[in-house]
Amino acid sequence: MVGFESYVVVHNIAKRHNVGTLARSATAFGVTELILVGRRDFNAFGSHGSASHVRFRHFHSLSDARTYLKEEKDCDICGVEIADGAAAINEHPFKRSTAFLLGNEGTGLSAKEYEICDFFVYIPQYGCGTASLNVTVAASIVLHHFGVWAGFSERSRDGSKFIVADKPVRQGRKNFCAGTEESIIEERKLRKESAENGFFDDNGNESSSSDLLNGLFLND
Amino acid sequence: MVGFESYVVVHNIAKRHNVGTLARSATAFGVTELILVGRRDFNAFGSHGSASHVRFRHFHSLSDARTYLKEEKDCDICGVEIADGAAAINEHPFKRSTAFLLGNEGTGLSAKEYEICDFFVYIPQYGCGTASLNVTVAASIVLHHFGVWAGFSERSRDGSKFIVADKPVRQGRKNFCAGTEESIIEERKLRKESAENGFFDDNGNESSSSDLLNGLFLND
Repeated sequence: MVGFESYVVVHNIAKRHNVGTLARSATAFGVTELILVGRRDFNAFGSHGSASHVRFRHFHSLSDARTYLKEEKDCDICGVEIADGAAAINEHPFKRSTAFLLGNEGTGLSAKEYEICDFFVYIPQYGCGTASLNVTVAASIVLHHFGVWAGFSERSRDGSKFIVADKPVRQGRKNFCAGTEESIIEERKLRKESAENGFFDDNGNESSSSDLLNGLFLND
Repeated sequence: MVGFESYVVVHNIAKRHNVGTLARSATAFGVTELILVGRRDFNAFGSHGSASHVRFRHFHSLSDARTYLKEEKDCDICGVEIADGAAAINEHPFKRSTAFLLGNEGTGLSAKEYEICDFFVYIPQYGCGTASLNVTVAASIVLHHFGVWAGFSERSRDGSKFIVADKPVRQGRKNFCAGTEESIIEERKLRKESAENGFFDDNGNESSSSDLLNGLFLND
């Protein structure tokens, strides 16, 4: 069986802290890369330090992101949106590696975002109340189902906790969670790239927190 | 077919804003009641006004909550925890109406919480990184699956949005989203109770936001 991969694409995400909680879920569900398009002035708030376990990539435009996903990764692009013809996520309408394009919070997908999607999934709702889920909640449900469909191997557990890799390593290497010398070298290179991209305040001190937001979001 | 119901139980939830985002997801997935045990000094932050669509109930102790769920509601109590013998959530190990007991953020279920559970589910993880999901993310995945299993009827859609009921009505009345006079009277009564319980600052002005937290969490 071919090893399938999942990608998450967010375009102009408005709330910086959502990127952090998204990174936490992306890490938990074995996402290969979290792809940010457009603005990237976010920080890793709310990620419980997990941001360093998921690879980030940035593109200035949606069409650049599309080219990368189509030509280099041979992915389907799946919009997470209540669109005409959208399939319920629990129907698992997947065929190959898939990049999930999430709407900006609250507004759903724009016309340009619609255009680059091959198909759409939505999350059935049953209540009478709110009509939009938190963006990380929606992404997490979708990524969970993709992992089930793709047959990702489950992370080892130690008693009641999943085991966290000693060293953050790249999800691009599937089923590869140990901190070998090679992976550490790759990891350092990627952290350096991330720092150069201005993604993180890469001072290696994840627990420093004089910041109100950190105080609020850590351990949530 | 008997109409199944879902309940969410949170015990001493530590982050006030999590109750708000939890209420938003509980509303979206047709939860009958959100049951708070122990501390209840929360507010409806992050709920997009959806808190008024879900019924809240408070108990001082876990055993009171258990008695209510078992004797009045004939529910199974399902711990959401990576416990020995826990079933993967996508296996849908349900039999009847179910109350989901969520661990306090980060720490998982306590010994007392374990004791009142009939069975456990966990959410498979695939990555190498973070070992705990945000409590609302975990709850949302579980509630989504329960809704799929129970065959809850999907909310009507209007184009790309689910339709929100004109008047917040009680989830206890399944498949009943219209704002009839009777439901409005019941609604008013319940809002009054909620206000007396100190759950909400029930001034009817959901968009007032001089509060920093509100500014952060609305629209997330």
